[in-house]
Amino acid sequence: MTRTTFLGLGAMGGALAMAAVDADRPIVVWNRTPHRAQRLGERGAVVAGSVEEAVAGDGVIVACLLDHRSVRGVLDPVAARLSGRTLVNLTTTTPNQARDLATWAGVHGIDYLDGAVMAVPAMIGGPGSTLLYSGSAPAFEKHRTLLELWGESSYLGIDAGLASLYDLAILSGMYTMFAGFTHGAAMVGSAGVPATEFATRAAPFLAAMTGSLAGTAAAIDARNYAGEGQQSLEFTQVALDTIVQASIDQGVSVEVLRPVRDLVHRQVAAGHGTAGTDRIFEEMRSTR
Amino acid sequence: MTRTTFLGLGAMGGALAMAAVDADRPIVVWNRTPHRAQRLGERGAVVAGSVEEAVAGDGVIVACLLDHRSVRGVLDPVAARLSGRTLVNLTTTTPNQARDLATWAGVHGIDYLDGAVMAVPAMIGGPGSTLLYSGSAPAFEKHRTLLELWGESSYLGIDAGLASLYDLAILSGMYTMFAGFTHGAAMVGSAGVPATEFATRAAPFLAAMTGSLAGTAAAIDARNYAGEGQQSLEFTQVALDTIVQASIDQGVSVEVLRPVRDLVHRQVAAGHGTAGTDRIFEEMRSTR
Ligand SMILES: NC(=O)c1ccc[n+]([C@@H]2O[C@H](COP(=O)([O-])OP(=O)(O)OC[C@H]3O[C@@H](n4cnc5c(N)ncnc54)[C@H](OP(=O)(O)O)[C@@H]3O)[C@@H](O)[C@H]2O)c1
Ligand SMILES: NC(=O)c1ccc[n+]([C@@H]2O[C@H](COP(=O)([O-])OP(=O)(O)OC[C@H]3O[C@@H](n4cnc5c(N)ncnc54)[C@H](OP(=O)(O)O)[C@@H]3O)[C@@H](O)[C@H]2O)c1
Repeated sequence: MTRTTFLGLGAMGGALAMAAVDADRPIVVWNRTPHRAQRLGERGAVVAGSVEEAVAGDGVIVACLLDHRSVRGVLDPVAARLSGRTLVNLTTTTPNQARDLATWAGVHGIDYLDGAVMAVPAMIGGPGSTLLYSGSAPAFEKHRTLLELWGESSYLGIDAGLASLYDLAILSGMYTMFAGFTHGAAMVGSAGVPATEFATRAAPFLAAMTGSLAGTAAAIDARNYAGEGQQSLEFTQVALDTIVQASIDQGVSVEVLRPVRDLVHRQVAAGHGTAGTDRIFEEMRSTR
Repeated sequence: MTRTTFLGLGAMGGALAMAAVDADRPIVVWNRTPHRAQRLGERGAVVAGSVEEAVAGDGVIVACLLDHRSVRGVLDPVAARLSGRTLVNLTTTTPNQARDLATWAGVHGIDYLDGAVMAVPAMIGGPGSTLLYSGSAPAFEKHRTLLELWGESSYLGIDAGLASLYDLAILSGMYTMFAGFTHGAAMVGSAGVPATEFATRAAPFLAAMTGSLAGTAAAIDARNYAGEGQQSLEFTQVALDTIVQASIDQGVSVEVLRPVRDLVHRQVAAGHGTAGTDRIFEEMRSTR
């Protein structure tokens, strides 16, 4: 019977392996620190004493380790035995590191699928869990049943770096939104308003505003920032200056907001004041 | 018959006045540049030739001018005649400027209500248009029918600066989210992915993530960053380092992202690595 191998049983790797066990899939698991395999062993997983033992069969290998370096550290010593096998790597890496792993896999005759988990461990297998994949299309198709145990699974393209690139790009939006929300909470907090009260207004407003991101994206793709509905850079400049001034007045640090304001100021200074604010995209592409 | 006075008929002031005309409310309008009053005049508004003329009656006065300075510039010369009247000011100002106007109004016996319009002109009177008010509670209650012609209206408190503070705090979240989204679009764009394709995944993800802002807010209010569901600062540090590295690799400027990463790094360096990421709030309050 073909067993699926799981390398790395941290918070995320453990959740991925547990979803396979829950689906009655035969699995063999390995973790550097052995105790983390215990619960899975009790649930029927074969616990391997070494990486060699874990990859001895012929099933797909799922890696979920700390980072790129730990993936190479765990797999390099056994690379020679992995020819013809499929490796699904769900470790978070940069796109270039994913491409490096794809090249390394190609050298060793390994079919490589890179994945990015857009969920926290508790969400794995439940609604809202999304995973992005790129690299080997045949590997994605062949192992789709496994992958869909974890969440909605999308294949983005043959460039192994794409899943990671997408993931990190979306997280850029998330972390900046959270930082901006926290900045706002500090602003109202300075006048004694609880953050929870602020959230009841800010969260629905921000959720509604995600509805206009498609319009921003369309302006970016067309490189046309003159659309009717767009707020001008001049207008946004005044708004951001007002927010920065109000923050300073209220004793709130403008560290997160200042670069956004600076981007807009530079665009206005370059003569684009009447163009739409989406034009800040042009400032993001440092290579063009 | 008591007429409502509108001072300032720009994009927003014009929309506010038009909503009143549409509701068959008698109004008198004034704009520095007269031609902007023309359409309203054709629809039945009385067009005043001067500010003095516009404020001659006894109705509520609605100001929607460029900024704080223009409000003082327009109203200072007629202040002596406004005793006993109500002024609703929907001009965007900082909280301190709103407080200054409230003080100025108090000196002249004017009942002052400060408002912040959380909508673009085309949304006025339609679904999704929200207006925040603070300052005089009696003015809010008395003129509620008028205010609700424009959108959902909330009164936040007696501090005239609150509506503006709330508005600017929410906009902080919006502008940073847009900047982060644009950053993400530049990341995937560097690999040839259209921004519109990116938006189909990023927008629903960000919308879903607004669902966790209430949890962030609760952690902030409790100043307890040790909750179960929270991602640790150490985890977020690695994630942000990865995004920054990936951005650099892809030729995307990290101007917007770097301060968020720096905040997290400082918190980890100060020994809070195992605390939840919401703890960045503590870095925002520059005065405490
Ligand atoms: N947790 C999340 O919310 C989440 C979300 C999306 C993506 N991810 C990604 O999933 C991956 C795993 O995250 P996690 O949350 O499971 O982290 P974790 O709980 O810290 O687990 C890390 C895993 O990597 C192993 N490891 C670390 N260094 C190693 C090395 N040099 N050699 C061998 N094994 C090593 C650890 O083994 P030991 O037990 O021996 O230390 C453990 O199994 C990361 O790339 C993370 O970015 C996580
Ligand atoms: N548009 C929006 O999406 C939006 C959203 C929320 C809040 N707001 C706020 O609403 C206010 C008005 O915005 P808007 O979009 O209507 O701007 P606008 O179209 O540029 O109109 C500005 C108005 O202010 C008048 N004005 C400027 N300086 C003046 C001065 N020194 N003396 C007398 N009048 C003066 C203009 O008169 P002239 O016609 O003679 O120039 C015009 O009536 C601003 O505070 C803005 O922040 C706007």
